[in-house]
Amino acid sequence: MIIDIHGHYTTEPGQLHTFRDKQLAGLADAGRKPATAELGITDEQLVASVQPQLKFQRERGSDLTIFSPRASGMGHHVGNEAIGRDWCRVSNDLIHRICALLPENFAAVGQLPQFPGAPIDNCIPELERLVGLGFVGINLNPDPSGGYWKSPPLTDRYWYPIYEKMVEWQMPAMIHVTGSCNPAVHFTGAHYINGDTTAFMQLLQGNLFKDFPELKFVIPHGGGAVPFHWGRYRGIAQDMKKPLLGEHLLKNVFFDTCVYHLPGIELMAKVIPVDNILFASEMLGAVKGIDPETAHHYDDTKRYVDQLKGLDEASRYKIFEGNARRVYPRLDAQLAKRGHAARKAVAKEPT
Amino acid sequence: MIIDIHGHYTTEPGQLHTFRDKQLAGLADAGRKPATAELGITDEQLVASVQPQLKFQRERGSDLTIFSPRASGMGHHVGNEAIGRDWCRVSNDLIHRICALLPENFAAVGQLPQFPGAPIDNCIPELERLVGLGFVGINLNPDPSGGYWKSPPLTDRYWYPIYEKMVEWQMPAMIHVTGSCNPAVHFTGAHYINGDTTAFMQLLQGNLFKDFPELKFVIPHGGGAVPFHWGRYRGIAQDMKKPLLGEHLLKNVFFDTCVYHLPGIELMAKVIPVDNILFASEMLGAVKGIDPETAHHYDDTKRYVDQLKGLDEASRYKIFEGNARRVYPRLDAQLAKRGHAARKAVAKEPT
Repeated sequence: MIIDIHGHYTTEPGQLHTFRDKQLAGLADAGRKPATAELGITDEQLVASVQPQLKFQRERGSDLTIFSPRASGMGHHVGNEAIGRDWCRVSNDLIHRICALLPENFAAVGQLPQFPGAPIDNCIPELERLVGLGFVGINLNPDPSGGYWKSPPLTDRYWYPIYEKMVEWQMPAMIHVTGSCNPAVHFTGAHYINGDTTAFMQLLQGNLFKDFPELKFVIPHGGGAVPFHWGRYRGIAQDMKKPLLGEHLLKNVFFDTCVYHLPGIELMAKVIPVDNILFASEMLGAVKGIDPETAHHYDDTKRYVDQLKGLDEASRYKIFEGNARRVYPRLDAQLAKRGHAARKAVAKEPT
Repeated sequence: MIIDIHGHYTTEPGQLHTFRDKQLAGLADAGRKPATAELGITDEQLVASVQPQLKFQRERGSDLTIFSPRASGMGHHVGNEAIGRDWCRVSNDLIHRICALLPENFAAVGQLPQFPGAPIDNCIPELERLVGLGFVGINLNPDPSGGYWKSPPLTDRYWYPIYEKMVEWQMPAMIHVTGSCNPAVHFTGAHYINGDTTAFMQLLQGNLFKDFPELKFVIPHGGGAVPFHWGRYRGIAQDMKKPLLGEHLLKNVFFDTCVYHLPGIELMAKVIPVDNILFASEMLGAVKGIDPETAHHYDDTKRYVDQLKGLDEASRYKIFEGNARRVYPRLDAQLAKRGHAARKAVAKEPT
């Protein structure tokens, strides 16, 4: 089966946006607060709203999308912590309902009610709730200030309480920023990619995985700038007397394939071990158009992976399914329960 | 000849650091201010200090390095504007002296006395001084706040006064941030690369080169994440109804080859037109070690360019010399005056 590990719910029904408007309007005028978190969205509306994703799954040949709320919509820097908590719950609940309605097509990943300056411990109740609802992972925002980078690096003890629970509950995190409120930093064109690069460098500087050997992070968008500058990162780690990156980071850090042209995916496959690459398209994400050079959608990333030369069957399985089942053990368990057995572990292939 | 367009003076004599210490100590205790900007560095000391660079030029086979003060040393966010102005002048003066002593080996690029929140107009006197001293370009910092991105984007009219003078005086700018004072953002491993990516996206969003068709920017470190995500940027531009990137940006925006492994340079040569690639190594820069996979220095980037397959002689000339002479017209004039004629313009090659 083919698992796309990076999809956001970017086709939400209008009622969700209306709710958010009322919620934020309520900051200025309490009379405008939404009376209830009931959005009035029916199951039929939810199923209708994800038809574009289902159509792309069929057309492009993927089976299951790991699905989370719109990344730019998380808005951790917006409003106050209490409003953020409600918003987080409402957003996650929609994901939960969609995944319950279409379990063969979607697996749930949730956002957390992070807020700039607030203790990360405040996110544990929602994490626990997500585990109970069958979510398989979370999105963790390394910069809840929305483009100003005011949080301590991911290696700081600030983050340890959530890591302890992530490990205990086998919940991996995609490191994913939300929208940018910084006019100098465009969200999908700069902040997302910078977030990936910055997070990787934070991890490189520290020794986090000595304290949390079971912790797993996915860095999206192909790892930001990291594979393109793989020599730079190998060299900086060496200058810092860190172990080789394979030992230092790659047991815990994975990259997705949200890179929207063949040369980028080719580079990635050259420098990143196949055990660390997870298929993803972020479909209905940052780039929606058709590439005039190929006459295919930019974000039809399966085509690029399919065109990789010298990718043997075992490696292909890892990128499209095996690595995802290893990084997301709760997904693996759900799939096994539904009769989709994983292949037996195979020896590591050279890349 | 082979021109390396990106070298910083990272082997400064100790007197420069002593001066800076006294200067900043003077903020807390006026009695510690340096009495004079005379550093007491002799010409012999200057020449001795750049022997490592000269050795690498000889060993690696480059001829001339475009040389500017240490990037992380610019420290635009440090102290106050008056101290920054003195520091800028002292730093640029050392570059000037080195280039006067060794004109066959170094050409001068200067820093500007930018300060967070201060009008960019305040940098014009130093720019004019640099022109008078024979500098061939400048480093322009898109984030003088040092990692918090508090300035308006490069397309904002805030920057226009310096652009007007850059065009008038034929001074291109390398878009280069300085050190990061943000503990979440490592300088060479995140801030530099993010700065490149962010600047490119700012330019993509705007229409700056409609107002300044002669303005020229070099984005260093291979353009940050940009070539790796070339499909993403082409797609975002398309979604924004911008012209094709070749038309929209590539008459004015150039990338250097400071990418420290062969697969990165190969990717770059695949997606970026050869007219937009300028050879550079940033030698004695961010990564100083020897790559155990190749037994050569990571930053010996000439080796990677030399290994590019299918690079014809005309393209090779462009990357190593021709493009630099086109982007830095004052350098071209200096070289011509010294008897190094440029080749006649050749028709554009397909990449």
